[in-house]
Amino acid sequence: MTDETETAVATPESHAPEAQDRLSPDFVRAILDLVESGDVEAVREKVEPLHPADIADLVELTPADQRQPLAAAISGLIDGEVLAEMNDWVRDALIDSLEPHELADIAAELDTDDAVAIIEDMEEADQRAVLRALDPDDRAAIEEALSYPEESAGRLMQRELIAVPEHWTVGDVLDYLRGEEQLATDFWEIFVVDPAHHPVGTCALSWILRTPRLVSIADVMKREQTLIPVDMDQEEVALIFQKYALISAAVTDDSGRLVGVITVDDIVHIISEEAGEDALLLSGAGDGDINEPIRDTYIARVRWLIANLFTALIASSIIALFGGAIEQMVALAVLMPIVASVGGNAGTQTMAIVVRALATNQLTQSNTVRMIRREILVALLNGGTIAVLLGLGAGLVFGNPALGGVIAAAMIINILVAGLAGVLVPVAFDRMDQDPAVASSVFVTMVTDSMGFLAFLGLAVASGLVGW
Amino acid sequence: MTDETETAVATPESHAPEAQDRLSPDFVRAILDLVESGDVEAVREKVEPLHPADIADLVELTPADQRQPLAAAISGLIDGEVLAEMNDWVRDALIDSLEPHELADIAAELDTDDAVAIIEDMEEADQRAVLRALDPDDRAAIEEALSYPEESAGRLMQRELIAVPEHWTVGDVLDYLRGEEQLATDFWEIFVVDPAHHPVGTCALSWILRTPRLVSIADVMKREQTLIPVDMDQEEVALIFQKYALISAAVTDDSGRLVGVITVDDIVHIISEEAGEDALLLSGAGDGDINEPIRDTYIARVRWLIANLFTALIASSIIALFGGAIEQMVALAVLMPIVASVGGNAGTQTMAIVVRALATNQLTQSNTVRMIRREILVALLNGGTIAVLLGLGAGLVFGNPALGGVIAAAMIINILVAGLAGVLVPVAFDRMDQDPAVASSVFVTMVTDSMGFLAFLGLAVASGLVGW
Repeated sequence: MTDETETAVATPESHAPEAQDRLSPDFVRAILDLVESGDVEAVREKVEPLHPADIADLVELTPADQRQPLAAAISGLIDGEVLAEMNDWVRDALIDSLEPHELADIAAELDTDDAVAIIEDMEEADQRAVLRALDPDDRAAIEEALSYPEESAGRLMQRELIAVPEHWTVGDVLDYLRGEEQLATDFWEIFVVDPAHHPVGTCALSWILRTPRLVSIADVMKREQTLIPVDMDQEEVALIFQKYALISAAVTDDSGRLVGVITVDDIVHIISEEAGEDALLLSGAGDGDINEPIRDTYIARVRWLIANLFTALIASSIIALFGGAIEQMVALAVLMPIVASVGGNAGTQTMAIVVRALATNQLTQSNTVRMIRREILVALLNGGTIAVLLGLGAGLVFGNPALGGVIAAAMIINILVAGLAGVLVPVAFDRMDQDPAVASSVFVTMVTDSMGFLAFLGLAVASGLVGW
Repeated sequence: MTDETETAVATPESHAPEAQDRLSPDFVRAILDLVESGDVEAVREKVEPLHPADIADLVELTPADQRQPLAAAISGLIDGEVLAEMNDWVRDALIDSLEPHELADIAAELDTDDAVAIIEDMEEADQRAVLRALDPDDRAAIEEALSYPEESAGRLMQRELIAVPEHWTVGDVLDYLRGEEQLATDFWEIFVVDPAHHPVGTCALSWILRTPRLVSIADVMKREQTLIPVDMDQEEVALIFQKYALISAAVTDDSGRLVGVITVDDIVHIISEEAGEDALLLSGAGDGDINEPIRDTYIARVRWLIANLFTALIASSIIALFGGAIEQMVALAVLMPIVASVGGNAGTQTMAIVVRALATNQLTQSNTVRMIRREILVALLNGGTIAVLLGLGAGLVFGNPALGGVIAAAMIINILVAGLAGVLVPVAFDRMDQDPAVASSVFVTMVTDSMGFLAFLGLAVASGLVGW
């Protein structure tokens, strides 16, 4: 791709960011009306000036049953860049309707990382068909990328990069860059390699631009660089990019050879996904995408609800133990859900903070004990406050100070237990190399529900407020 | 800053990413032991080779009461870059112990955006003292940045940027860049402006590097660019960077003049924060930082627990209405928390997905109705499944098929209500321009708790299973 084609953009004004950022409902409806009326010309005229990311959004915002006619009307406009921007589920459905050779054309024009993102989600047979239709170079690159584990640096990286030998001067680099017509897409730094293709340094383009031609590249480059092993998990990669504010980073294989480059624009999606998915995982909503097929959504969520049903049954069987006590004093049945509910909330607060701190490497073995002490202190303060409010209230409403005392004590106990469970459960999952966001919630809820009922009803009996 | 100083990095090898990414507990402990024994030399020797982000981490991982001695031992090593990387709370405490002129020295060496990030959190009096100690140029830049609203593009942007006139050639640009010793830090694109300093185009450095000297910059630049208004909210800025995979973007004032540039490395933190904070907000944990002072944590969380206490009281008063029914059949008290708990979970699942979809602009007015229909369908499937399991189980255990039927019906009703509340509550907050993550949880829980008890106990009475 030459500079001329890259810059042959005709639109003279920039879009207003508001319009760029969110397609208005009116705009979407107008396009769908045109699609329905069969006015392909008018549809293409409206869609053509859009940014690929906006075309992808347009398809996502279109109801599933109208996507096929829309895609047909704007065929050719849905290129690799649009597909790369598209929601996985929507893309998969669209890809199913394309022929392998059409897909191969699309994949061939993309960087390896984007091509891999599209191909990796396809079914085995379709994958093979597309790979067969690619030219041998592209196929080899994509097959190699697919040989790395899912969600690893090897899948994320693009193989297109600029690597130059250490003995070159800045002038050599400039001449090389000006001479090569076939250089891939935009790049932000060049890598300096030794004869065995091991990276020895990195050079931001701004440094090259500011340096006279005769200076050796070895004098401009920075030797200290962050190397990403090809099998590193993408979440780890994202944390490194974030921590060291990287724009791009070299990827090396087991023998330390430079095999690819990861750029921050690919990482931004992962940072957002990884950070955002914790809220979904904690709620038991799985991947929680609004474009996911209903069947997948149902399976993901119902499994969680069934798990929750079992924890509720445990809490319920604790209540059953105290059936006699409840018969004697119905107020116990009225008040007991409060103890469980507020305790559950306190546990969720702590858990959310701990899961986030673990995900961002803020909570490590160095400060776990400090964290536990901190949460105990917060729990005592919170528990004390709620206990006073609830104890006084219950004592007054039911005209029974002993009942107030029992519920106050139960409240403190449950919030304290909630705080401990909120730290210990996710930390334990993390130590066992399990994602703490996935299963912590079930366990913490089980603890706070059961303990809420047990502490309240148990204290009521133990204090002699009611008989067993 | 010249190239020579930028590249005068002596360390020949790159750090292993594992070591870079997380300071080992042994390393932290070894340093703190050295601090305690007063061996300042040894401490500095160990800390000096660390990346600024790692020095910041080291301070964060140090217990609060040992941070002051550590900071004293490595004074001088805690420079602006280290402070910019540091957790807000830890930084504030550290800054309180520094003199204004020391802070001014640190702020002067930073880009405007980093200096602003440090100064904006300080108290009014300290802020004024630091500003007075700065030289007039830096002061003007920082004061202007502080005049923009908090969390706006104006606070994020750096004013250091490269802007060139349209009539220049690539050669002119190269000569200019090589001639200026005072150019700020790294940059990734240059901006082309008209005589009124309005941006007319942007040019990635890689395009300049690949173009012969005589070509006009106007022929290389891309005219279509994403402009960020200076008062745009940072969350919106982050979404735009993410959507269009930007490395940097021009910031313009009300009259369309180029006033600054935002680069992706500043955005990466915001993307992560904004995406991650939803889990914290939904749980009612506030900002939820593990370094927050206990007092702030207590206030943030107890407010939420008190809100939760009131919603629990509403649910509780519904139970009280059915006191007579519970006295007749204690099984109702045993089973009722299950209906509320599973319903609450179902509501939380939907709510988490909707909040995330709203935050990422996936859920707009164009597809809200579709989303509601989708959630009703999922709720019917989930509700049906849980109802069958729970209905059969309860019917068998209590030997009472009518009881099983009542709890099954209540379960379907509550999961359906939960699904609707899970969509409508956050969407309503969003339409009212309120952050849906902040308050949705309280309302959804109130609905699912109350409806759980009301449906179950109400149906038990209405079906004649028990008397009123």
